[in-house]
Amino acid sequence: MSALDPRRPLVTAAALRPFRLDDAGLRLLDQRALPQEERWLRFRADDVIEGVAVAIEQLAVRGAPAIGGAAALAIACAVRDRGGDPDVVEFLRAADARLRRTRPTAVNLFVALDAIARARDSAADDVVGAVVDAAAAYVDDDEAACAAMGDAGTDLLSDGDVVVTICHTGALATCGQGTALGVVKSARRQGKDIAVVALETRPLLQGARLTAWECLREGIPVTLITDGMASFALARGIKGRRITRAFVGADRVAENGDTANKIGTCNLAVACSAFGVPFHVVAPRSTFDDGCVDGDAIPIEERAADEVRAIRGTVTAPADVPVWNPSFDVTPARLITSWISERGVVVR
Amino acid sequence: MSALDPRRPLVTAAALRPFRLDDAGLRLLDQRALPQEERWLRFRADDVIEGVAVAIEQLAVRGAPAIGGAAALAIACAVRDRGGDPDVVEFLRAADARLRRTRPTAVNLFVALDAIARARDSAADDVVGAVVDAAAAYVDDDEAACAAMGDAGTDLLSDGDVVVTICHTGALATCGQGTALGVVKSARRQGKDIAVVALETRPLLQGARLTAWECLREGIPVTLITDGMASFALARGIKGRRITRAFVGADRVAENGDTANKIGTCNLAVACSAFGVPFHVVAPRSTFDDGCVDGDAIPIEERAADEVRAIRGTVTAPADVPVWNPSFDVTPARLITSWISERGVVVR
Repeated sequence: MSALDPRRPLVTAAALRPFRLDDAGLRLLDQRALPQEERWLRFRADDVIEGVAVAIEQLAVRGAPAIGGAAALAIACAVRDRGGDPDVVEFLRAADARLRRTRPTAVNLFVALDAIARARDSAADDVVGAVVDAAAAYVDDDEAACAAMGDAGTDLLSDGDVVVTICHTGALATCGQGTALGVVKSARRQGKDIAVVALETRPLLQGARLTAWECLREGIPVTLITDGMASFALARGIKGRRITRAFVGADRVAENGDTANKIGTCNLAVACSAFGVPFHVVAPRSTFDDGCVDGDAIPIEERAADEVRAIRGTVTAPADVPVWNPSFDVTPARLITSWISERGVVVR
Repeated sequence: MSALDPRRPLVTAAALRPFRLDDAGLRLLDQRALPQEERWLRFRADDVIEGVAVAIEQLAVRGAPAIGGAAALAIACAVRDRGGDPDVVEFLRAADARLRRTRPTAVNLFVALDAIARARDSAADDVVGAVVDAAAAYVDDDEAACAAMGDAGTDLLSDGDVVVTICHTGALATCGQGTALGVVKSARRQGKDIAVVALETRPLLQGARLTAWECLREGIPVTLITDGMASFALARGIKGRRITRAFVGADRVAENGDTANKIGTCNLAVACSAFGVPFHVVAPRSTFDDGCVDGDAIPIEERAADEVRAIRGTVTAPADVPVWNPSFDVTPARLITSWISERGVVVR
């Protein structure tokens, strides 16, 4: 059953999802308000493109696969009732252009938009039907990819493993159960006792706000640490348990394996390498950019200085201190043990 | 001229210092309020021991050499007018015990208290005079050590170098110009163009709050980054400039060179090692603990979980998420290029 089938809402009662498209329009969970509040943004056909574009820019929805899904569903929501409208192709081109301008690093957004543009340009007559099907296919494929990545990755995990991760890679970051955190979920469903160590992930604290929240919600044992604690945690263990593996997500994987992901990921990979802990990247095929030769070719978004000079509105530094704030970094392929996609595990 | 000579206040108009002992009593700059506010705590003889003990526990004064200085001056302030008091030795023993219970990791506190205890126990008749002289000697020696470390370390710096550092190692952390940041000051006084990259240093943000503030105050070019950005900054440079060296302080150096310092230091050392950037520890001899065989023997203070779950009162994580919060880590000696004390540079 398609994600856009009206009989099957995207969000079931049981499953956590970052968005929900139903007859009333598109609803997005505003991830900026978590963990204190579950606030949903609501969009209808006439405001969904600009609304979702701003939601992506301002990180109300984030996570590479989820950004693609939000953009796809925004387009589906905007045009699904416009069958026969002669202006729909022009509208779709403008929507595509607007959504492409939101964030540069995660490639999944462009994968989703490219698929929708191909459907738009190759449809024989029912452009709207083709576009809506392409949007639904991205979402459904990503949900299936999450399940397949979980199946593939769980073989790497043994009962008692402790997994360190950064940023947030659970359901809210994807259209399914998640990428890196999804592997932990799959392993735990097999009965393996797997605990998570979450790096808080400054500046925007996706680890503290979202990974900690989702782990508590799902009953996954989790310990929160600051980003700077990673090496000492790897060296000494935490509360008597050694950290045995790292699983992280990705925003873009270059042909040579260099991997862009949330800022701090390279730090964690370096630490894992120094202390002999395997480091795994979990990402759907839509994250692998075969047109990108290596990490130097990945565009890295830089964001506002005040993300570093303040934390959720609380000032943490002099107002005039210069800041460098790349939102992502590139982990060299040599520091990565394996990449896990829906096609399986690729070892370096 | 002694630091306690009434003709020479500890803080001159020009020099930044974390405390000042004068006829009115002991004043401590409350470093928790920086950078927004320069708030001074004031203590007199009758409340200075408990007041400074709490100030150390709550990090109103911090930085390994400064903790020793604050404890020493607290004792001097408490007893300087009690010459001839038959109860002064008993009072001194209680003060020593109270101050020893404040923080476990930085050894300089114990060095200062040990020197004062030796003066107390070996004084022929003028116990108060001997104790006050010992306190003044610790402060004066630390100020002189800072100058000597600056002289020793500056030879490692060339015009155009960019120095990455963590936590705060400037004047507020010592009784002089600082340790790691003091080396930068000495090099800049020689006319070398040296810039600083400051890690913000979660959880308590000494880099963002204090290093950034002191650099701006002293005219040192500084760029603030989060702790997780270190590896990417080392790999790519910041704003077109490569990071060429790391200088950090220390809270305790074991006999084998393993070095306890602010949590995150080990992460930075691992990153510097991975990207071929020399990593230097700058600390006065009072930080070198010859009774401590290696890093495993250094007691590591763990602090409250809410330091990680909130930032200056702003909630950043679920209230009930488990946390690990060591205040320090241990950098293995193999990751350290050299140690710089007032006696010179020791290369691994």
